[in-house]
Amino acid sequence: MPVVYLTRRAVFSASHRLHSNQLSEDENRQLFGKCNHPRGHGHNYAIEVTVRGGIDPRTGIVMNLTELKAAIEETVMRSMDHRNLNLDVPQFQDLNPTAENIAVVCWQMLEDHLPEGLLHEVVIRETENNFVRYRGE
Amino acid sequence: MPVVYLTRRAVFSASHRLHSNQLSEDENRQLFGKCNHPRGHGHNYAIEVTVRGGIDPRTGIVMNLTELKAAIEETVMRSMDHRNLNLDVPQFQDLNPTAENIAVVCWQMLEDHLPEGLLHEVVIRETENNFVRYRGE
Amino acid sequence: MPVVYLTRRAVFSASHRLHSNQLSEDENRQLFGKCNHPRGHGHNYAIEVTVRGGIDPRTGIVMNLTELKAAIEETVMRSMDHRNLNLDVPQFQDLNPTAENIAVVCWQMLEDHLPEGLLHEVVIRETENNFVRYRGE
Amino acid sequence: MPVVYLTRRAVFSASHRLHSNQLSEDENRQLFGKCNHPRGHGHNYAIEVTVRGGIDPRTGIVMNLTELKAAIEETVMRSMDHRNLNLDVPQFQDLNPTAENIAVVCWQMLEDHLPEGLLHEVVIRETENNFVRYRGE
Amino acid sequence: MPVVYLTRRAVFSASHRLHSNQLSEDENRQLFGKCNHPRGHGHNYAIEVTVRGGIDPRTGIVMNLTELKAAIEETVMRSMDHRNLNLDVPQFQDLNPTAENIAVVCWQMLEDHLPEGLLHEVVIRETENNFVRYRGE
Amino acid sequence: MPVVYLTRRAVFSASHRLHSNQLSEDENRQLFGKCNHPRGHGHNYAIEVTVRGGIDPRTGIVMNLTELKAAIEETVMRSMDHRNLNLDVPQFQDLNPTAENIAVVCWQMLEDHLPEGLLHEVVIRETENNFVRYRGE
Repeated sequence: MPVVYLTRRAVFSASHRLHSNQLSEDENRQLFGKCNHPRGHGHNYAIEVTVRGGIDPRTGIVMNLTELKAAIEETVMRSMDHRNLNLDVPQFQDLNPTAENIAVVCWQMLEDHLPEGLLHEVVIRETENNFVRYRGE
Repeated sequence: MPVVYLTRRAVFSASHRLHSNQLSEDENRQLFGKCNHPRGHGHNYAIEVTVRGGIDPRTGIVMNLTELKAAIEETVMRSMDHRNLNLDVPQFQDLNPTAENIAVVCWQMLEDHLPEGLLHEVVIRETENNFVRYRGE
Repeated sequence: MPVVYLTRRAVFSASHRLHSNQLSEDENRQLFGKCNHPRGHGHNYAIEVTVRGGIDPRTGIVMNLTELKAAIEETVMRSMDHRNLNLDVPQFQDLNPTAENIAVVCWQMLEDHLPEGLLHEVVIRETENNFVRYRGE
Repeated sequence: MPVVYLTRRAVFSASHRLHSNQLSEDENRQLFGKCNHPRGHGHNYAIEVTVRGGIDPRTGIVMNLTELKAAIEETVMRSMDHRNLNLDVPQFQDLNPTAENIAVVCWQMLEDHLPEGLLHEVVIRETENNFVRYRGE
Repeated sequence: MPVVYLTRRAVFSASHRLHSNQLSEDENRQLFGKCNHPRGHGHNYAIEVTVRGGIDPRTGIVMNLTELKAAIEETVMRSMDHRNLNLDVPQFQDLNPTAENIAVVCWQMLEDHLPEGLLHEVVIRETENNFVRYRGE
Repeated sequence: MPVVYLTRRAVFSASHRLHSNQLSEDENRQLFGKCNHPRGHGHNYAIEVTVRGGIDPRTGIVMNLTELKAAIEETVMRSMDHRNLNLDVPQFQDLNPTAENIAVVCWQMLEDHLPEGLLHEVVIRETENNFVRYRGE
């Protein structure tokens, strides 16, 4: 039973402000520069969710793409699409919504909505020049 | 002297909320749906600025690409990049920051920073699935 | 009232075979080569639909993007997505489903579903190396 | 001798129908939805073939890119480009042509045409929103 | 007979140096900056060639895509792909190989290889942030 | 402390000629074909630099993206952008500037400009159809 990596991509539009509660105003400004601007800015975030598993010989698939798409819709898209990450998403009340943390939060959201052991990687593309991968390490 | 169209592209990250002062709360919600969400959302906007002119036979160019890039930096990028369009950009105090209006405002900003008669078109790409062109009509 | 061009993009997956009823088997084979292969092949077609109109000063938009998206869904996507163009789409019963003809058929389908006079251009991208524009000429 | 991963990409246009001989008509319809549509649909598939090996200090390359390209042409492109995967490709006579299985079949085709031990990964991109990786596991 | 615009894209890799014989060394350096660097630099140029014409009702096409591709191969690709534009292409012996001039030279090369009156536009994309259009004006 | 992979992308325009000092003229011509053309050609190279590390719980980041960008600017961009790799970059005086070797040289340049142990991968994309990964193996 060959093992493959199946990836589904989705795009959401969100605003955020990089700001850590554990740093002073000055430290935030110095570390995050224009990304710390008080009234926020935004991105079209692309998320790529990869599951890893054997190909079911009866069906020819690892898991139903429709179910993978639904898992992304019910978690990431429902809570983050067309939202202000800092103000609208509970997970970022006390957590800086950096691309790194967004990837980890998406992983946590997805883990419970997917068959156990399948989730392999979450990629968050923030701009065409920077992106982050998280593999549950 | 052959006439060509020269285009320069730049990308800015901004947040906005679609909301018109001339509509009721209900009308705004109905017309703009999730784009009317109160705390806003965001995009990576790509702007493409096109100038149209004859090729200078001495230099081989229509205008210096460095100057075209500088004109975009000093106008669009300076006022909109990493900003909240509704709250940070004076032109949108009383104007709904739709892709249509962003294109018109960018045109107005650029017109004074470019040699007269050269500006031909401004394209604003808001997501990979929608964009707007404005040609000064 | 500034006039802008607003474009919405959608992607559909379809199969087709290039074959004209008005040509002999040999002429078809010679003209269309591997695209004439009897059991067909397929593409991810991207369609870009552009409307042209004035920006409504009350709302800041040319037309509601949701309605433009719905018009594409109800016409092009409903009849062509995940279909065999030659066998499933009535318009191609006697018409060769070339990119050229697909663009014209999409224009005809869309014209009745959009406010009169707004439709400006239909682009069909067949591969990353070829596409067709139709403007109702 | 540094070890690098060298990737070559190619694009082929094919039609297919998701349908497993080991499932009933109803099960196929329920599992694959519109992808099970009887007369098929199609995609522009992008394949990315990665070889892994040391850089030859005499030449500066892992393997000749022209030979890698030729290996893809003689196997994947020759049998799948501008074809109906279900009806034209012997490997899919009794195998559902899902992206997962396409990746495995391409790996098997390529393995014999490449120097032993070099093949590392095959990626099949079916749409801009889903793709599959196979690494011979 | 509907009129459509059919576009074919190709990519060539070339090196060039921006330098005009009609300017002094200092003027060249000041105007073109790093693009005037003496030993040159390079780009993957994408060319998009558009023909405009009526759809032939017998065939369903404006012109054979294979012939359009061949016209690009025999002219632009043959003389510019994997070449140094300044040193290898006769047209640039006394002409600065700017994107503007490359577009005009490609137009001139293509005009004689295409049915009269069909050539509508040549686009040259030099980087992901700048491109030029020429329409024979 | 979750471990993530953070990637930054940059694009540089360079010219090169594939030619190994350790091969004869004939061997070079046979192995590298048009890439061995004497006066060189060029590419828009995209480099993707990935660092791997734990998310700092105080800041929410692995490392400051501005510093990662600066490290790429001061090394790869400064020495290779708008340059002739064979003639302008000391590392390629006796080393064939293949994509494989460019990736290794970029890794060596970056290693000293990044916090120890963070550098994970360098990707060099030479054209839209070929790219190379190097992970320090």
